[in-house]
Amino acid sequence: MKFIQSMKNPQVKQWKKLLTKKEREKTGQYLIEGFHLVETALNYKEQIIELMVSEEAILPPHWNVDDLDMTMVTPEIAKTLSDTEAGQGVFAICRKQELPDILGGRTYLLVDTVQDPGNMGTMIRTADAAGLDGVILGTGCADPYNPKVLRSAQGSHFHLPIIQMPLLEAIEQLREKEVPVFGTSLQGASDYREVSIMDSFALVVGNEGGGVDKALLDRTDRNVYIPIYGQSESLNVAVAAGVLLYHFRQSLKNV
Amino acid sequence: MKFIQSMKNPQVKQWKKLLTKKEREKTGQYLIEGFHLVETALNYKEQIIELMVSEEAILPPHWNVDDLDMTMVTPEIAKTLSDTEAGQGVFAICRKQELPDILGGRTYLLVDTVQDPGNMGTMIRTADAAGLDGVILGTGCADPYNPKVLRSAQGSHFHLPIIQMPLLEAIEQLREKEVPVFGTSLQGASDYREVSIMDSFALVVGNEGGGVDKALLDRTDRNVYIPIYGQSESLNVAVAAGVLLYHFRQSLKNV
Repeated sequence: MKFIQSMKNPQVKQWKKLLTKKEREKTGQYLIEGFHLVETALNYKEQIIELMVSEEAILPPHWNVDDLDMTMVTPEIAKTLSDTEAGQGVFAICRKQELPDILGGRTYLLVDTVQDPGNMGTMIRTADAAGLDGVILGTGCADPYNPKVLRSAQGSHFHLPIIQMPLLEAIEQLREKEVPVFGTSLQGASDYREVSIMDSFALVVGNEGGGVDKALLDRTDRNVYIPIYGQSESLNVAVAAGVLLYHFRQSLKNV
Repeated sequence: MKFIQSMKNPQVKQWKKLLTKKEREKTGQYLIEGFHLVETALNYKEQIIELMVSEEAILPPHWNVDDLDMTMVTPEIAKTLSDTEAGQGVFAICRKQELPDILGGRTYLLVDTVQDPGNMGTMIRTADAAGLDGVILGTGCADPYNPKVLRSAQGSHFHLPIIQMPLLEAIEQLREKEVPVFGTSLQGASDYREVSIMDSFALVVGNEGGGVDKALLDRTDRNVYIPIYGQSESLNVAVAAGVLLYHFRQSLKNV
């Protein structure tokens, strides 16, 4: 196993660059950290390019990493690669999934202009839990390969396709395939519980300040809202997505 | 209006102390910031002790603050009081609500050992949206008056009681009043959709690592889980609370 001790090593500099969106987009690669994420990635080895491990970290004995390119680094280098204060000293460089151009599934979450990485990661995790066929991120969303999004999604990046495309285009594709598209809106919308029994669905959620873009709401089949019984003005977008995705998922027939 | 310009002013030091849990517990006071939170607080003026405004901030003309004690401060002082990088220069010192010792409502969220302030604030906001009678935080939870919890809750602290008490005691009180108590657990639990039509309910959620303490699960009426259809191991605790609270709220009869 290689052992890199110098912070100035060009390899270290290259790894660090993956903390920027620009480099992730240029290379199609991203950096994950922590035992849970790396262990999840080990089930998708074709997506792993290499592992980096701090000399202070102890790999779990059940990890099968013999066939992977692995480099040992100093705790100091591990610290510079980490996005958290209490890093675990275990990292992997992964390549982004290759995605089809065509939306072939029957259940999707579409996300319009959500910038908060915690909310975005939580929604990817929830879409995975609800068994969706994919998450579609419109332009103006946070980069899904940002370390905070990766952390909040807890490995769901490996479980379902995360597709970046203009949402108007996605909505047109889905409607052509007769997948009903539901927007979320407080105006001109129905209580979500009025929607039931479906073969397929796509749900569009938007950022908490402005909601879903009106141009998108105009192109959906129907728009829904979640009733507010108390005095808060709205729900957190990831919570709203959870309530709606579970309702819609459980309304599917022939599951 | 007073104008404080020196960072060394004892008043500034006192305000800053409220960023610590210790001082908030000692004084029964807490600090909120930002236009949205302070505007919400203005509907509960009896809870406001004083306002602080940066000389660079412009108060909305519809704010009625004539009867409040207000101090102008320099942008530099505003920055030291702020918990965010892009503070808005508007703050209030509030006193914590006075809470009854007895749980007199019929719908509660009980939170066991949740430390993440974002999750806690989001759950308080969701409990408000679902129209609950209160949130009960067990020992081992994050301080609900922590600035990050306040920010995530978006003003719901003013809308419903946030009660801190040992959860075993809360469960005993609720069961005596015949409020059914539901724990969340992956073992020995029922699909949450099997629970329907109730007069009242209390839901217990726990931290993401360890779940709800077994000693509490043993004292509930019934434990429930949310099915996972995909490959993620679990849901984020605030998302799970949202799915369950909306299901339970909508199962209430005579609402």
